[in-house]
Amino acid sequence: MPDAPCARIGAYAVYATSRRTPLGVPCAGTISGGLPVVRVGVIGGGQLARMMIPPAVNLGIDLRVLAETEGMAASLAATAVGDYHDVETVLAFARDVDVITFDHEHVPQDVLHALVDAGVPVHPGPDALLFAQDKLLMRQKLSDLGLPVPAWARVETEDELQDFLDANGGHAVVKTPRGGYDGKGVRVVSAAHEASDWFTTLAEHGAQDALLVEEFVDFRRELAQLSARRPSGELVLWPVVESIQRDGVCAEVLAPAPGSAGRIADVAAQIAADVATGLGVTGVFAVELFETQDDRLLINELAMRPHNSGHWTQDGSTTSQFEQHLRAVLDLPLGATGCTEPHTVMVNILGGPADGALADRYSSALGAHPTAKIHNYGKDPRPGRKVGHVNASGSRLDVVAYEARAAAAFFQN
Amino acid sequence: MPDAPCARIGAYAVYATSRRTPLGVPCAGTISGGLPVVRVGVIGGGQLARMMIPPAVNLGIDLRVLAETEGMAASLAATAVGDYHDVETVLAFARDVDVITFDHEHVPQDVLHALVDAGVPVHPGPDALLFAQDKLLMRQKLSDLGLPVPAWARVETEDELQDFLDANGGHAVVKTPRGGYDGKGVRVVSAAHEASDWFTTLAEHGAQDALLVEEFVDFRRELAQLSARRPSGELVLWPVVESIQRDGVCAEVLAPAPGSAGRIADVAAQIAADVATGLGVTGVFAVELFETQDDRLLINELAMRPHNSGHWTQDGSTTSQFEQHLRAVLDLPLGATGCTEPHTVMVNILGGPADGALADRYSSALGAHPTAKIHNYGKDPRPGRKVGHVNASGSRLDVVAYEARAAAAFFQN
Repeated sequence: MPDAPCARIGAYAVYATSRRTPLGVPCAGTISGGLPVVRVGVIGGGQLARMMIPPAVNLGIDLRVLAETEGMAASLAATAVGDYHDVETVLAFARDVDVITFDHEHVPQDVLHALVDAGVPVHPGPDALLFAQDKLLMRQKLSDLGLPVPAWARVETEDELQDFLDANGGHAVVKTPRGGYDGKGVRVVSAAHEASDWFTTLAEHGAQDALLVEEFVDFRRELAQLSARRPSGELVLWPVVESIQRDGVCAEVLAPAPGSAGRIADVAAQIAADVATGLGVTGVFAVELFETQDDRLLINELAMRPHNSGHWTQDGSTTSQFEQHLRAVLDLPLGATGCTEPHTVMVNILGGPADGALADRYSSALGAHPTAKIHNYGKDPRPGRKVGHVNASGSRLDVVAYEARAAAAFFQN
Repeated sequence: MPDAPCARIGAYAVYATSRRTPLGVPCAGTISGGLPVVRVGVIGGGQLARMMIPPAVNLGIDLRVLAETEGMAASLAATAVGDYHDVETVLAFARDVDVITFDHEHVPQDVLHALVDAGVPVHPGPDALLFAQDKLLMRQKLSDLGLPVPAWARVETEDELQDFLDANGGHAVVKTPRGGYDGKGVRVVSAAHEASDWFTTLAEHGAQDALLVEEFVDFRRELAQLSARRPSGELVLWPVVESIQRDGVCAEVLAPAPGSAGRIADVAAQIAADVATGLGVTGVFAVELFETQDDRLLINELAMRPHNSGHWTQDGSTTSQFEQHLRAVLDLPLGATGCTEPHTVMVNILGGPADGALADRYSSALGAHPTAKIHNYGKDPRPGRKVGHVNASGSRLDVVAYEARAAAAFFQN
């Protein structure tokens, strides 16, 4: 398939007029014969860092990972093991790389600023990551930018929460501003006392002196707009996808989202562009969206890194989100974001086999599903843990969804 | 696009009836939490071993490479550096893996047999590799199997060569039986004395006491049939491709070969199947073919490993040859071999930039060609050396070929 016209929006495809990539300057890294190579340092050794390894190998990029512990998903590329909260550890790691990027959004601001002060390019930068680290700051910023968000409030007391509930139909979603992921730190309440334990422990969380409360959105489905932006401005967008959550965790992604061509794609693209420039995001980022019953798109969450909603790009797009992220943080021209097949479906492998490794099921799973692409994070199975995913692509959504679901099912019992 | 019907020939898709994969037995390898992982050992650290890294990461396979020297293309996966001619070195390397396979076909027979005697699964095995190591043995075997080959003879003297020339139109191709690749060890002659230096030095080559002479085939084009076979029998075939050589080196590959659906695909598939079973090949292998002016297919060369004619599969097929090779040598079910786009063109990067690294050209090359997929082997540029390749895919062959050629051109001046 040729690239979909929506994939690269002309107005946003701003090519660099000045070169800020480290490629243009001499660097310390060399390969055997003494030629300069490009070194990207990734803080965090999880599956997102792991999935940057294949495109780094393809492009001849020296990927270096600072892992939290030995034996993590990205251990093949780990050149250091240490605590990313420690400034000296991170500065030492950053000494040999051309740019620092991330497996997650949790590196503290003081560490990020120490890197910047030391002259290390950091993408996304501290100012952008601040919004990803604090949901209250993010909601405030998005509101200031005039972007469509659910009704929300900062609440410091049960009384304030009850006032919000009374004004918003009696149901709301309460979130801890920091530290939540995959449904953690998120609670649906219909009375203020249901969040009393969180108010009690607010003080214990240090910087968190309030909770975020949002209206309970009556959504038809959840969508995500995956995009990438270079420091010098170029922005590219993949097709909008539909993400299906179970128990607060992404279970499946349908790419593109059925019926999203046209208005939905246009609105989502505009939102992503406004977010990128408004928040100064660099690298790959994902805007998670609610499609409401009354046909609006509201911003749910924002991830400033490759994202589960973009894993389908590994096997369904001309450029995977992991290759694109490397290109973006190096300020290299971005790759085409069209679909290589009309439909790709991603199904997460949650938990994994109860009695062994994913590879124990390869004989049966691969035999039954020769078109399925298996991604194994090399992590020990554990209930609810994301240990891998399956992509399947083709011309019929029902067939593709069946293949991906059926192949993934081999690994989940 | 759905898989082409030619991709998996029903009669050859023989699924395993008995399991011989090392997955079924406990192995020494573990990941952090103690679960068994699959370990594949590759002898040789060149770009073919390097390109096995991405699918190994995807599938959670622990790829271990015995590299000839430090800093080779596959250094990221190198767990040992040593001489593959040395039995003890190779046996020590093989101790920690579930199967041994290869980056090249040059491992000596005594080393291969020592591995087999030690109980190590070796794919392809010594008996198959023997034919890849000696062109005279290969020609004899293919002739014995009744497969279509050019007229050929074993010649020990200039007189015998002249007799062959006189009987075959006055032109012929002389080949040293061992050690040739990329046009080396191959010479077109029209008089026997043009090979006199090779006859003089025959004795110096040890085992080589004769030359191979073949008719000079009046071919229309060169084709290649890439295939993969599991030890337990399953065989899959990718579409036939056209390969364009310059100075004896593969320059471009067009996938599928224009006009090859139907008779050509059927004949090539039958040849590959007969070769695979007749020679006992396991893993990925490539049969290079001449398409003659009178519409015959003749076997030119045979490679028992992933092959340059199959690099297009990385970005143009549901299963890349490198993933397939890992699956095949582990006796896992093979992946679908259909095209993800109607056309993929691969263009080799030969030599590389005269004044720097491939990455120095990324800004211009990637900017001009956002759909091109760059594969950088991490090797120092050197005239004529294969240092990378570019794949481009799409619905129009002319457009795709232009993209691949134009992107590759950025790296070759």
